[in-house]
Parts: sequence; structure tokens; C-alpha cells
Amino acid sequence: MKRFSDFDLPDIAAVLEGYSRFCADQIAPLSHLGDTEGASFEKGRVKMPEEYVQAYAQFADMGWQALTHPVEYGGMGLPRAVGAAALEMLNAADMSFGLCPLLTDGAIEALLLSGSDEQKATYLEPLIAGRWSGTMNLTEPQAGSDLGRVATRAMRRGDGRYGISGTKIFITYGAHDLTENIVHLVLARTPDAPTGPAGMSLFIVPQKLVEPDGTLGAENAVNCVSIEHKLGVRASPTAVLEFNDATGYLIGDENRGLEYMFVMMNVARFSVGVQGIAISERAYQRALTFARERVQSRPVNSKSGDAAPIIEHPDVRRMLLRMRSLTEGGRAVAAATAGLLDVGRCQDNKEMTALAEFMVPLVKGFCSERAVDVASLGVQVHGGMGFIEETGAAQHYRDARILPIYEGTTAIQANDLLGRKVLRDRGETARRFAILIAETEAKLAGGDAAAQAIGSSLAQARGAFESALDWLLANSRKDADTAYAGSVPFLMLAGTLAAGWSLAKGALAAQAALDAGQNRQFMTQKIATALFFAEHILPECLTEQTRILYGSSSLLDATFPD
Amino acid sequence: MKRFSDFDLPDIAAVLEGYSRFCADQIAPLSHLGDTEGASFEKGRVKMPEEYVQAYAQFADMGWQALTHPVEYGGMGLPRAVGAAALEMLNAADMSFGLCPLLTDGAIEALLLSGSDEQKATYLEPLIAGRWSGTMNLTEPQAGSDLGRVATRAMRRGDGRYGISGTKIFITYGAHDLTENIVHLVLARTPDAPTGPAGMSLFIVPQKLVEPDGTLGAENAVNCVSIEHKLGVRASPTAVLEFNDATGYLIGDENRGLEYMFVMMNVARFSVGVQGIAISERAYQRALTFARERVQSRPVNSKSGDAAPIIEHPDVRRMLLRMRSLTEGGRAVAAATAGLLDVGRCQDNKEMTALAEFMVPLVKGFCSERAVDVASLGVQVHGGMGFIEETGAAQHYRDARILPIYEGTTAIQANDLLGRKVLRDRGETARRFAILIAETEAKLAGGDAAAQAIGSSLAQARGAFESALDWLLANSRKDADTAYAGSVPFLMLAGTLAAGWSLAKGALAAQAALDAGQNRQFMTQKIATALFFAEHILPECLTEQTRILYGSSSLLDATFPD
Repeated sequence: MKRFSDFDLPDIAAVLEGYSRFCADQIAPLSHLGDTEGASFEKGRVKMPEEYVQAYAQFADMGWQALTHPVEYGGMGLPRAVGAAALEMLNAADMSFGLCPLLTDGAIEALLLSGSDEQKATYLEPLIAGRWSGTMNLTEPQAGSDLGRVATRAMRRGDGRYGISGTKIFITYGAHDLTENIVHLVLARTPDAPTGPAGMSLFIVPQKLVEPDGTLGAENAVNCVSIEHKLGVRASPTAVLEFNDATGYLIGDENRGLEYMFVMMNVARFSVGVQGIAISERAYQRALTFARERVQSRPVNSKSGDAAPIIEHPDVRRMLLRMRSLTEGGRAVAAATAGLLDVGRCQDNKEMTALAEFMVPLVKGFCSERAVDVASLGVQVHGGMGFIEETGAAQHYRDARILPIYEGTTAIQANDLLGRKVLRDRGETARRFAILIAETEAKLAGGDAAAQAIGSSLAQARGAFESALDWLLANSRKDADTAYAGSVPFLMLAGTLAAGWSLAKGALAAQAALDAGQNRQFMTQKIATALFFAEHILPECLTEQTRILYGSSSLLDATFPD
Repeated sequence: MKRFSDFDLPDIAAVLEGYSRFCADQIAPLSHLGDTEGASFEKGRVKMPEEYVQAYAQFADMGWQALTHPVEYGGMGLPRAVGAAALEMLNAADMSFGLCPLLTDGAIEALLLSGSDEQKATYLEPLIAGRWSGTMNLTEPQAGSDLGRVATRAMRRGDGRYGISGTKIFITYGAHDLTENIVHLVLARTPDAPTGPAGMSLFIVPQKLVEPDGTLGAENAVNCVSIEHKLGVRASPTAVLEFNDATGYLIGDENRGLEYMFVMMNVARFSVGVQGIAISERAYQRALTFARERVQSRPVNSKSGDAAPIIEHPDVRRMLLRMRSLTEGGRAVAAATAGLLDVGRCQDNKEMTALAEFMVPLVKGFCSERAVDVASLGVQVHGGMGFIEETGAAQHYRDARILPIYEGTTAIQANDLLGRKVLRDRGETARRFAILIAETEAKLAGGDAAAQAIGSSLAQARGAFESALDWLLANSRKDADTAYAGSVPFLMLAGTLAAGWSLAKGALAAQAALDAGQNRQFMTQKIATALFFAEHILPECLTEQTRILYGSSSLLDATFPD
């Protein structure tokens, strides 16, 4: 891999080490404060807590926005697999903070792939340097999941520029005082555009206009009308933006906006999955610490009458292991997906890229849904203290809840998976995924008792996947509703299987390390996590299979009370 | 049933009708306000929002606290099955409001069973009239699930009274301004009491002392030190109470406090399960309304390009039906349990009472866990709007989270189920439960295709239950940890099975009604709900069985990082 050949492992470890220190020391302490104070809105301006302004300045100064972006625009050019690890740490420290760089990454990606040379020259350097931030302006009151209903207008001004008018809602970091400028990427329609999704164009609408020399000029006609009062991520301002004939610059060609936006959205979807892993990890760490410190009740097996730390009670162990194995399983899938994206792009390997694209909705859908469960278990481990806001467990439960919703709900991910990633190539990529899993099973069969147990659970789960796949391929031709009734169950089946598989590969690697006498405790725990996942979570694949194969008519035929 | 022979169905329907109007008109409108304003604490006093004070006065005036309590103390003497329906409506209207009467019910029950005649004469009438409220003072900072660690002291004063000193936390409605007086029931230890659970006594500690003529005298030495800032049920004040040699009156005998408290706690546990059903129902109603009104995207099967109400999309139907079937399944189990409690008590039928007691931890554990899931799905159905607090869906998600924690966590319910309700009688009651289910399966086998499908899912789930039961009975003798590693999975298995069974009985009744030409739409929907539950939720029993039978060693052997 020529592209990344400048880096060796120690370099990367050093970067991640530094990033991790920054997250732990500068960002993590903001999380509770951000939740309590939140972003505030007054006289059309959004004010971030002062501590966020300072921390963001440090983030930009240290060059952390540049991590995975191209060297020619000031980036560090690291692979996405490294970027995913950094993203997880930042969002584990504070998801509200993490959202600003996350959206900026998406804007950079969209400009890199679809912007003109002039646009790249104007916007990329300050975005990558963290001096400006990016936003994604899709949603309107009548257009949420249904982007075809976008109504914001773009009038040609005759000088190559456009006048953008309309209202956008749910715009993450749509207004704030962390950066000098905000680069809005906005979906809108020209007057003669076709209706529906095929008539949307994508525009750059800078909050402050940029002079030819790159300095900032007049304020554009983009006004923040209000910000939302939300369940979680309260320091991340969610803006309603009004565009009143704001100056916009077309990206690429007219009417191809949705296509360009999808580039940005796919980056963001992967990142949201990683946010899920991040919240899960933070919730797990907090619950583990609490379970070690909190002393309550005599263990059922104990001879003495003494109370013990609750981590000694079987059900607390069950909850902690469920949290840990879902978190590590999600992380393993995300890392594998990022690796496939990196390698697929470098080597122009279509099969690898197709497999990565098959896995992106799993990362988003599975990891975000599981983050809600993991955060909920984190509250439960804390008992009554978990319900008290000061403890912090409740914040994760609130923050996590947006993950299965934004950047495409779980159902949207499932439709993407089933429609675009499975049915379109008649299951070819999905079958390749299953074959790779079978190869891992074969390796596990030659291992010790734990490896064999993992392998046999994995084989059962893969069988469930293949049978669901066959059924969906056969039935989608006859009746789309019948197939799509099983779309989310199929996403969860595939996501669970992918996580179990990735953990199983990790267990094989851990066993090899153990055999070589390396890192005993860590490697033993990796295998234990994979085994727990195999015995407690992989069996859920069979339930999903049952739902898909036998559950469609009870779902479609039921009526609802008037 | 002589005891309830004064009531006929129209009487009961009329009472519930009136109660429902009161809940809808007077209580439901408070819910958002209570969440936003919350209870406030100033200078040692808790102030409820003014609207709660007025609504509570109406609640008391209309005699609603009296519903299920004995006629001789001013109660209406209705069966518990009716009380459960009322409780659900009140808590669906507003759980924060509902908690005050719920705790008062528990105090009444404890006094009825264990109080002296004089205590009954003094406290019952004003409690049942709703003029006074009751509280349950168990938890201390070091004593949560582990009540054996209670340290509050009770010093004999020589005049039959006791001086109570100590700090209690998490006291629901421990301080408020809704009623003239608050009757605290407090667990404490006399100086010479044995250590652990066997040394606890139960005391009545009125907030205002009661004169011999029943009028209120001086304030007792019970001070509210603070109230908690909670994730949900924010209008329900959760107090830290300090007892400084407060005057207390012993209930029953010294050192038998835990036994008396369990009476109160069992009532409260059942009620918390019903709160879960209540929150689920409210979340479902809200999601259903939204899904009918919100127009987004063309249905996958649609010929036209027009967007449709989202209820037409298969995955939205899946979510709504999951919400509905979990809610109705929980309700059916709670109603059956209440019926068994009523009949078991009236007829002094030990088998029925044992079955009811087997089912109480299912009502609490299963319905409360599922309420969290249902409320979470309610947010998901709303998409981005679900994350905005003004919509209301997020409040249910926050409110519901306390349910699997208070009045004994899910693990405590599972230990109660496994230890006291299953292992103690060597599975006798559990087997009776399975036999009753098999009888229902036999009836379903004679029905139409839907009935047969329900019957066959039910048989599979019952098989999973019986195999888990056999395994637990065999293994608990060898190794308690191994058995208790499966306690929560067993609770969820049994709860899911009980709900599927209860819905199946409902489907049989609905089919009989249909055959008699009654209430077509309602009865058809009942059958549809039971079928959905059978095909989408009952299969989860098999996963729980796998966890119990094969998952204990991966759970017990794993270690955690230092």
C-alpha cells in the first residue's frame, strides 16, 4: 500500500497516544458541564460554553482536524482505520464536542470528491486546519428521511452564483462561536429542476463570504432562528437556519446534489456508528468502575456473610460482559470496515469496496442501536444512582438516543443494506461476506475448546444469515413489502454476525499472541469477550431469522384502531 | 366469590369510566409541566407545582385513593384486578403524580396486615381518604439492594415509643405539600438487635404527630435535607430524610420489620410493573398518532410516487406492533396476576396464591424492562422529532428508566423468582404454570390457522421454559453461581412466556366473540396482537434458554481489566 507507506506502527501509535491524552485531559472534563449548561441562543446568536471555545481552539491549534485528510491541503494523510480510533476517543470524551469535527470531516470529504479546483483551494485548507467548520443542510420540516421533498430554492443570479432561500432544520452546529466561519453545504432546487430526488443540487453557502484573497468578507444571508431543546448532546447546538437569498456556489453539476451529498453522508454514517462505540465504551468504563467500588450484598456462592463489590454478583457480571462484548464487537466491525475502505480505495479493489459498503449500514445501524442498549445497561449497573443526573450514566443514556436516528434512521440503514447492498447485486457481496466467515470457522475448528465453541455459534449464526438471505432474494421479487418487513431484523442479524465474526478473528489473533507468550491478561480477556458474545449474543441471530422468514404476514396484515 | 359479590360489571365499568375521565382531563395535562418545572426544594421544604396541589386535592375529594381498600376504613373494597386498571390509567396520565398514591397504597397495605388496632384506627382512615400520604423508608447510602446493612437506630424511650435517628435516601414523596400529613414507614434497628436482615424493625414515623383525638400536633424531628436531580419523573420529589430522634411507633414485633416491609414492597412491585404498562401504553398512543400524521416517502410497494403517512412503511408497522404487543402482553399478565391474588385471597387457595406470587416478579421485572424498550421505540418512531423534548416521546424514555431499578432491580426480581418462587418448592409452582400453558396450547390446536400458529410458537417457548427449569433445578444444587448466572434470562424467558400465554388466552376469547358476531374490529386486532407476539417476540425465549444452558461459564470465568 504505497499511499500509506510513509507511516509505520510506532508513528501511528504516537499520534493516537497524543490524541488520547488530549481527549482525556481537555475534552472529557467538558462533558458534564456541556450537558448542564448547553449551548445558548440569544438575539440570533449561539453561544457555546466558554470552556468549549477554549478547548476547540486547542483542538484546532494541535491540528487534530487534519488527521485523515490529504497532505496537499495541510492534512496528515493517515488511513481511515486510524481516524476511526481517534474519532472514538474524541466522542467517548464528549459526543457534543465530537459532533463539530465530525460534520467538518463530512464537508471536507464532499468537497474533495465533488468540488471544483477553485472551491478546493478556497475552502479545504481552513476546514482541515480547523479554522472553519462544516455543516450538512438537508432536513426541512416536511423533508426528513424523505429528501425528495426538499423545497429550498436556488435562483441563478447570472454571475455563476445562486440565491438560496428556504428553511433548514436539525442543523448540527449550524450556528456557533467556535470557528471564524461556517461552511454550510445545502441541498436546494433550481427553478426548472425535476421534482423529487433527481432535482436537487448541492451548494456551498459560507456563513461569512470569502474574498478572492481568502479573507473573510460580509455576513451571508443565513440566520439562525432558534436551537432545539434536546434529550441529549445538549452542548451541540441543533439549529433552525433561514436562508434569505443567501449567496451560494454550486458544487459539480445541477441536479446531482443528492449523489454528492451521499458521499458526505456515508462518511457521516460510518462516523455515527463509531460514536455509538464511543458512548458504549464510556458507559462501560463508568459502570465497571462503579461495580468495583460499590459494596452490596453477599454473593450467592459465598460462605461468609460479608457483602462484596457488586462486580462479584453474577448478574452484574452479565451486564458488564454484555456491555463490553457489544462495544468491542462494534469496534472490531468498524475497524474492519475502515480497513476495507482504505485498502479498497488504494488498490482500486471493487470487491473490497463493495464489502466495505455492505458493512457501512451495519456499523451505523447495529452500533447505534446497541449503544442505546449498552448505555441503558450502564444505568442499570448503577442502580438508583444511575437515575441521578450527577452520576453521569444517565447522560450517556440520553446522548446515545440520537444515534439510531440522525444521518438516516435504522430503518433507512436497513433499506440501504437490503436494497442497494444486497438485492442490487443479487446477494453476491452478501455471499462473499458469508464465505469469509466460513473460513474463520474452519480456523476456529482447529483450536481449543473455547475456539470451537465460538466457531460453532458462529456457524449457526451464519446459517441463519444465509437462510434469511435466500428467503429475501426469493421474496423481494414477488412482494417488496414482505421483504422489507424483515429489513431491520436482517440488518441486526448481519450486524450481530459481523461483530461475532470480527471478535472471533480477534480471538484467533489473541490465541496466537498467547502462544507466543505475549500480553497474557489482555489476550485472555479478548478471548473471553469473543466467547461471551458467541454464547450470549450470537444466538439472537436465530430469532431475527425467525422474524424474517415467518413474521411478515402478522406484521403486514394487522390493523390499527381508528 | 362472596367478598366482591356486591359489585357487578356495570358498577365496575362506571367506576373505571369516571376514573379514566379524571385521569384524562385533570392529570394527563400536568405531565409535561411537571417534567419541565419539577418539584422544587427551598429552605428545607419541598414545593410541588401549584397545578399538582390542585389536582391532588381533587383526587382526594373524589375518593380515588379508596378504590381497593376495605370498606370499614372508608374504602370502596374493589378487587385488585380493578385497581390495576385504574393504576395503569393514572400512571399513563402522569407517572410523577401516580407515585404518590402508589406509595400510599403500600403503606395502607402494610398497616392493614401488620398494624395494631390502635394504629389502624389512627392512620388508615386519613390515608384511605387521601388526606395523608404514605412513604417507604428503606434505602440508606450504604444500604440499597442490601437492606441488611440498614443502620438507622431506634432507641426505646420507655413509654412504648422509640426515638428514630439516621439518614434515609431515595424516599419517593418523602416531603411535599400535597397532603396535611405524611406517614413514613421506616426500617431501623433497636440497640440490641441481631446484625443483618434479621435485626430490623418497622416503625410508623408521622411527619406531624397525631394527637389522641386524631388532630395533628407538633412537627416530628424528620427533616428533608435535599431532593435529587433525576433523569425522569421530575415532579415526583425524591428526598433525603434525616431522622433526629424522631418519634416512632413500632409495627408488630421488634426484628420482624423486613417481613412486614415485604408486604408493602410486594404491593409496590406489582404496581411498578403496572407503571411499566402505563408508560408503554402512553408511548404507543403517542407514536401511533404521530405515525398516522407524519407523511414521508413512498411505500416500497406503491405504484405511485406519492409520499404516505409513515404508518404505511413496514418497519414503522413493526415498531408499532412491537410496542403494542409488549404493552398488551404485559397488561394481560398483570390482570391475570391481580385476578389470582384476589381469588387466591378470597378462597384461601394456596396454589393460586403461589402462582400469583410466582408471577409478581414477572410483572415487575418483565414489564419494567420492556417499558424501557417500548419507550425507546416510541422515540424512534418519531425520528428526529423524538429527540426534541417538546414532542413528549423523550419524557417517556426518561421516566421509564427508573422502573427496572426501584422497588428492587431486575436482578433482585430474578433472584426472588429463582430463589423463593422456583427453587424453594423444587419447581412445583413453575411446573403448574407450564401445565396451564399446555392446556391453552391444546385449545389453540383446535382453532384456525392463526390460532394454530400461536399455539405452536407457545409450545416452543414453553419447551424452552421447561428445559431451562430442569437445568436450573439440577444445577442450583451443585453450584449456586452457575444457576444465578441465568436468573435474569430465566425471568425474561418466563415473563415473555407468560405474556404470550396471556395474549393467546385473549385470542381464544376474541375468536369466541367474533364467532358470536361481537365487536369485529377490536377482536380482530386482539388476535393480530397475539399472533405478532407469537411470531416476533416468543422466539426470544429460545435465546434465553441458550444463555441459561450454555452461557454460565463464559459469564463466570471472564476477568476484567485492572
